[in-house]
Amino acid sequence: MDNTAPPEKDENADALVLSTDPLHPANHISDLCRRFYTLGWVTGTGGGVSIRHGDHIYLAPSGVQKEMMQPTDMFVMDYRTKKYIRQPAVLKPSACTPLFLAAYTHRNAGCCIHTHSQWAVLVTLLCESNLQSPTSTRHLFSIKEIEQIKGLSRGGTGSSEIAEGGRKLGNLGFFDTLRIPVIENTAHEEDLKDSLEAAMREWPEACAVLVRRHGVYVWGKDVVQAKTQAESLDYLFRLAVEMHGLGLKWV
Amino acid sequence: MDNTAPPEKDENADALVLSTDPLHPANHISDLCRRFYTLGWVTGTGGGVSIRHGDHIYLAPSGVQKEMMQPTDMFVMDYRTKKYIRQPAVLKPSACTPLFLAAYTHRNAGCCIHTHSQWAVLVTLLCESNLQSPTSTRHLFSIKEIEQIKGLSRGGTGSSEIAEGGRKLGNLGFFDTLRIPVIENTAHEEDLKDSLEAAMREWPEACAVLVRRHGVYVWGKDVVQAKTQAESLDYLFRLAVEMHGLGLKWV
Amino acid sequence: MDNTAPPEKDENADALVLSTDPLHPANHISDLCRRFYTLGWVTGTGGGVSIRHGDHIYLAPSGVQKEMMQPTDMFVMDYRTKKYIRQPAVLKPSACTPLFLAAYTHRNAGCCIHTHSQWAVLVTLLCESNLQSPTSTRHLFSIKEIEQIKGLSRGGTGSSEIAEGGRKLGNLGFFDTLRIPVIENTAHEEDLKDSLEAAMREWPEACAVLVRRHGVYVWGKDVVQAKTQAESLDYLFRLAVEMHGLGLKWV
Amino acid sequence: MDNTAPPEKDENADALVLSTDPLHPANHISDLCRRFYTLGWVTGTGGGVSIRHGDHIYLAPSGVQKEMMQPTDMFVMDYRTKKYIRQPAVLKPSACTPLFLAAYTHRNAGCCIHTHSQWAVLVTLLCESNLQSPTSTRHLFSIKEIEQIKGLSRGGTGSSEIAEGGRKLGNLGFFDTLRIPVIENTAHEEDLKDSLEAAMREWPEACAVLVRRHGVYVWGKDVVQAKTQAESLDYLFRLAVEMHGLGLKWV
Repeated sequence: MDNTAPPEKDENADALVLSTDPLHPANHISDLCRRFYTLGWVTGTGGGVSIRHGDHIYLAPSGVQKEMMQPTDMFVMDYRTKKYIRQPAVLKPSACTPLFLAAYTHRNAGCCIHTHSQWAVLVTLLCESNLQSPTSTRHLFSIKEIEQIKGLSRGGTGSSEIAEGGRKLGNLGFFDTLRIPVIENTAHEEDLKDSLEAAMREWPEACAVLVRRHGVYVWGKDVVQAKTQAESLDYLFRLAVEMHGLGLKWV
Repeated sequence: MDNTAPPEKDENADALVLSTDPLHPANHISDLCRRFYTLGWVTGTGGGVSIRHGDHIYLAPSGVQKEMMQPTDMFVMDYRTKKYIRQPAVLKPSACTPLFLAAYTHRNAGCCIHTHSQWAVLVTLLCESNLQSPTSTRHLFSIKEIEQIKGLSRGGTGSSEIAEGGRKLGNLGFFDTLRIPVIENTAHEEDLKDSLEAAMREWPEACAVLVRRHGVYVWGKDVVQAKTQAESLDYLFRLAVEMHGLGLKWV
Repeated sequence: MDNTAPPEKDENADALVLSTDPLHPANHISDLCRRFYTLGWVTGTGGGVSIRHGDHIYLAPSGVQKEMMQPTDMFVMDYRTKKYIRQPAVLKPSACTPLFLAAYTHRNAGCCIHTHSQWAVLVTLLCESNLQSPTSTRHLFSIKEIEQIKGLSRGGTGSSEIAEGGRKLGNLGFFDTLRIPVIENTAHEEDLKDSLEAAMREWPEACAVLVRRHGVYVWGKDVVQAKTQAESLDYLFRLAVEMHGLGLKWV
Repeated sequence: MDNTAPPEKDENADALVLSTDPLHPANHISDLCRRFYTLGWVTGTGGGVSIRHGDHIYLAPSGVQKEMMQPTDMFVMDYRTKKYIRQPAVLKPSACTPLFLAAYTHRNAGCCIHTHSQWAVLVTLLCESNLQSPTSTRHLFSIKEIEQIKGLSRGGTGSSEIAEGGRKLGNLGFFDTLRIPVIENTAHEEDLKDSLEAAMREWPEACAVLVRRHGVYVWGKDVVQAKTQAESLDYLFRLAVEMHGLGLKWV
């Protein structure tokens, strides 16, 4: 990724984030961050959100209190050139950026959400310890026969309406097994890119990637699908942790 | 159910959902959905709410973010003909519809609430594993001698005031046992109809039906009774899960 | 208690609950009920709040959604005659009334709060099972050496400032043991009166009474003391439940 | 500490707390207290917050409901003379004051937060019982390889940007071990000063001090760093408690 373009502060760059439309990406990300803070997903400046708007990638900055986010805090990247076309002067771009781009490139996503949810972290720890049934490996979280699984699409951006050819493209069914790959964490977040992309290729039906001892990346074809899938996954992660505590198997 | 009537978009149909009264069913359902989202009952577009208003059945649509619901998102069905008299063009009717109708038909309910509460799901899993006392079967959740049980009426629509003939119609007492049947989940939500109706017939005093690995259906004679009974049940489901974790018996 | 006075609906009675002062008892109770709902203390119309204002006792009604409470929903009783001087026509007085009066009579309280907090209920269940150390009996919840205990006053209405004669009147210290009696629940809430009063006499330093499988009654010399003590107790009840789950002793 | 200066009530003293700027310390502390109440950090008047503004130390008072705090409730101390230059007539200064001053003196902090978070208390209880691995002693909470650790700076006021000489000054990395000393509680909060200062000297990289059976003191170079570190620590304390409950080691 080539980010050598100097930060721009001209009026054109600010026009990218100024809008009275609450669903404009710069406003939408600020609103989502406030909501996600109350869910415990982005505490202590953790986590992040990005929206693709045509060829413009909107990105919440690094190290900012998510519940205080303002539209003018947003970075904007040109998706074709991978250069920032708006960089707030005093802020740092998110280390999640290459991971969000992976969702846009490999899944044709329109939005990507990264949370530090404790339920996601605990699920990766339980997988690591292989404390669930022998069919679960340390690199895969699997759960089935829970109604909420039906809120998740194959590949993360699948439509629940369309099935092309012989390949299922819609949402998972109640009797399907949800499988989310778990990759190992690295010292620097941007170094997760290769293993995250490998996991996306190996598990084409996965709608998310868990990062051990870290959190989860979830995407969708648009904000609504990314957000509701992030909610459904977090519901399932918490349920799995509670089930484990009660001595119940996930699969 | 015959839903062959084409979606109506005329002014008469919109008049069914436009009102300045916050307790009008279209406004009321939107408000309830926002409240239930904060309780974790309808995360990720899960769950649903319906109100009967004379011969009009108001229904929240399928697949919409519940905390964002607008009155104009509502479906309205004629209870006598079972035909939709208002269908938002871009939305799908809820798969819960036949189940809500069962509460109106078999219990004379005025409101029905469906949640994906994790406490409801965990209770069905504990019943499935028969991890509580041998008197609990896998098809029944039973708990007794908890004050909150007194918030629940016999049959779900019983008045706490009236007792007709020899049959008790009021709320349960502290020494009564609350019994909620648990039915098995199906691949498609509408296929729950027969077993839900059978459970309602078999357990005439039940104020709700649990669906294994899915959630719960709760009703009441009006919105207030349905909502407060849903709250009391969720309180009891959570308490039962916590009790199990602490090694305490429910009955 | 003689409640034979007919409900009054004249202007004088309404004047008892109409005020622009947010700290007027009728407004204050409504505000507290909304706050307590978010804490899970009064879910499903459970629990209650009362304030003594000179010789007027203000009482939230029975069976009303607490988060929706309005000042005009309040009952007002004359403390000297124990007759209602305001009764909303369509509402029922709270069955907690004789228990609130006990706090006014025996502790000179200015406010009394009754919650159905699940942490309170679970603590009474753990005491019942005698699952903590042998020094804890089934009729007493005891915990010590937790800083939050310092938020509780001896007897519930003790001042943290004053010590008269040889008797300690102030708040508990860190090395003091907090003791809250646990009474058995009854079929009808008003029948708790005798055992609650007996517990208050037997444990003059207790600032609250737990009711097995039901909840807790907490009082204070005024609203602030009653509310902050209810918060400190609920903190300790939850902590005790979590400690038990982690294998830690309370005393 | 010499607090013999009489309370001042003149206009100059009130000018210290009256501002239309939401980030003025008197307004900022009120806002933070409201936020922390919803996180369960300052329930029942527990906990406290202080901000250093040049030579003026702003301090929330003792015994006030934190979610109700008003700017005019604030105490202001001159950092050079350690005398109060504003004391609200009817309020008591916080017993946390000497502990907040320790953070300003020994860490050059700009803000210090004290919470009674139950997760902090439970972590100290688990350390006391030495229930985690033998490498954890009862006087130290240690955890590693959790992404959220990266939200914490060395010493609590370290910049994530700068590294001077051979000493690391930035934030902890994913493979670093977070170590927070645990000191024993005392009957009177102000008596914690000596052991808290000793712990700060013994553990120069610690960004906080846990107090057994009491809570935690967290600081930062400014409000944002103190608040986000308090959030990251609380996340880790809760995660550690959940891990322990699931049979997982912290280190």
